[in-house]
Amino acid sequence: MRNVTKDNITEAFKGYMGDEMEPRSREIMSSLVQHLHDFARETNLTHNEWRTGIAFLEGCAAIESEDRHEFVLASDILGLSSLVDMLHSRPDATSSSVLGPFHVSGAPPLPVGGDMKRDFGGPVLLAEGVIRDTDGNPIPGAEIDIWQTAPNGLYASQDEAQDTYSFHGLMTVGEDGRYAFTTVKPVEYTVPTDGPIGAILDACGRHPWRPSHLHYIVKAPGYRDLVTEIFPDDDPYLDQDTVFGVREDLVMKYHEKPASEFPEGMALSGKINAPFLAVEFDVTLAKA
Amino acid sequence: MRNVTKDNITEAFKGYMGDEMEPRSREIMSSLVQHLHDFARETNLTHNEWRTGIAFLEGCAAIESEDRHEFVLASDILGLSSLVDMLHSRPDATSSSVLGPFHVSGAPPLPVGGDMKRDFGGPVLLAEGVIRDTDGNPIPGAEIDIWQTAPNGLYASQDEAQDTYSFHGLMTVGEDGRYAFTTVKPVEYTVPTDGPIGAILDACGRHPWRPSHLHYIVKAPGYRDLVTEIFPDDDPYLDQDTVFGVREDLVMKYHEKPASEFPEGMALSGKINAPFLAVEFDVTLAKA
Repeated sequence: MRNVTKDNITEAFKGYMGDEMEPRSREIMSSLVQHLHDFARETNLTHNEWRTGIAFLEGCAAIESEDRHEFVLASDILGLSSLVDMLHSRPDATSSSVLGPFHVSGAPPLPVGGDMKRDFGGPVLLAEGVIRDTDGNPIPGAEIDIWQTAPNGLYASQDEAQDTYSFHGLMTVGEDGRYAFTTVKPVEYTVPTDGPIGAILDACGRHPWRPSHLHYIVKAPGYRDLVTEIFPDDDPYLDQDTVFGVREDLVMKYHEKPASEFPEGMALSGKINAPFLAVEFDVTLAKA
Repeated sequence: MRNVTKDNITEAFKGYMGDEMEPRSREIMSSLVQHLHDFARETNLTHNEWRTGIAFLEGCAAIESEDRHEFVLASDILGLSSLVDMLHSRPDATSSSVLGPFHVSGAPPLPVGGDMKRDFGGPVLLAEGVIRDTDGNPIPGAEIDIWQTAPNGLYASQDEAQDTYSFHGLMTVGEDGRYAFTTVKPVEYTVPTDGPIGAILDACGRHPWRPSHLHYIVKAPGYRDLVTEIFPDDDPYLDQDTVFGVREDLVMKYHEKPASEFPEGMALSGKINAPFLAVEFDVTLAKA
């Protein structure tokens, strides 16, 4: 197209794509560029604003590393990560939620009834539930990969004081589909604010907090992998999770119970001498 | 918002923005996120496709440097840079075109009639014209910053064999508003294809070529700065400039003339002994 104008440039872009292009790539690139151009036209985007956008991307690039995923964080705080999750969430299964950048693969096995709290301070939380199929039957041998922050609000991957797999555990359930573990009650925490994302949140008048949660990846052969989170219903940030991860079916009551009600068969059985918290959360997996 | 869904997440995003937010920032962020979310919903974007997008940004980040502006190049080949240019182009002035990533500031002065070709091979091109206001009057003392590729298709900033300001010159015109210089006829060239942008162009079945051009930044006190390009009307890539820079009023005939018609008063006057090319291109600046 020789005389590209602000009105025909989107068609010019589409026209430049070759006939042999893979159809799904064509669909995605067409939609992406249509929206990118419509955004610029709608806002009458100026050169200076364009430069601000480029500087934002270059600022993310400058701190991007194996341990710092600023582009993922950008997607998280813009709601894109959660939206992609929700687009592919199955209505007959437990809602999925964002994976986030802090999961460490290869966690050591944690037996059913095991403990992740160890010597960390804070209230003991007993989390348990059954991993079920959409008919309500337990899924024997399902695997649940658990991770959360330490009481200081940091994940092991952010905190040199913790060992690599601190507050990470990989549990394989038995015939009854039941998982159970003790840990410390998770705390709310902020996403990293010392980079361009902090500046965006500031400019938007937004806080950087996430409500406290337990994070699970649940898998079983023949079922769809599920990444999800469980939130306590009294968390102050439930109504404005800065990464848009809260779903109604993931908000649970963490019940306070006397030490005398702590169950048998747990690693900490017989060692609890103060009230503890308990949350019961069943997970439903959809067929693959 | 406690129960974020794929249908209300865009409103949730807008609701999270603080009351004190600067109105233009609110307008831009609202439109940006509306389009980002609409794009994901329209295409039913999958996790894998999202990961491909993140990997693209991380790939750009990995090669971004002072000499390599991959995010600018992304904006260029998606048509965003040209669109922003056109949104603010003045209909009563010469069309603007993309700045691109290759301009080097601080070029040495080039007198009116000066030469940029020096000992480089290739056809001599004589470029001249008058810098005018929108009433057609010359603008005395206007400044024209000129740059282009060497005959090998590389800009000085890309080519260790050239000195810093090779094929760069800064000319200040006299009372008659006239600029004139000799150079080598520019050649078509490709944008850098060894990074993620090359992969995108490939996936889209697109070539990486730009038509040959002279690049100008024209400035005068009281007038709006103009970044523009002049294209020869026989260039094979005029109809598909990979960065969407061609505008009809910027396409010019480069006339072949006998040596005997080479004008007086140029640095090369009396030294031309073969046919040369000549292009006449007047520039109109809009009032600031």
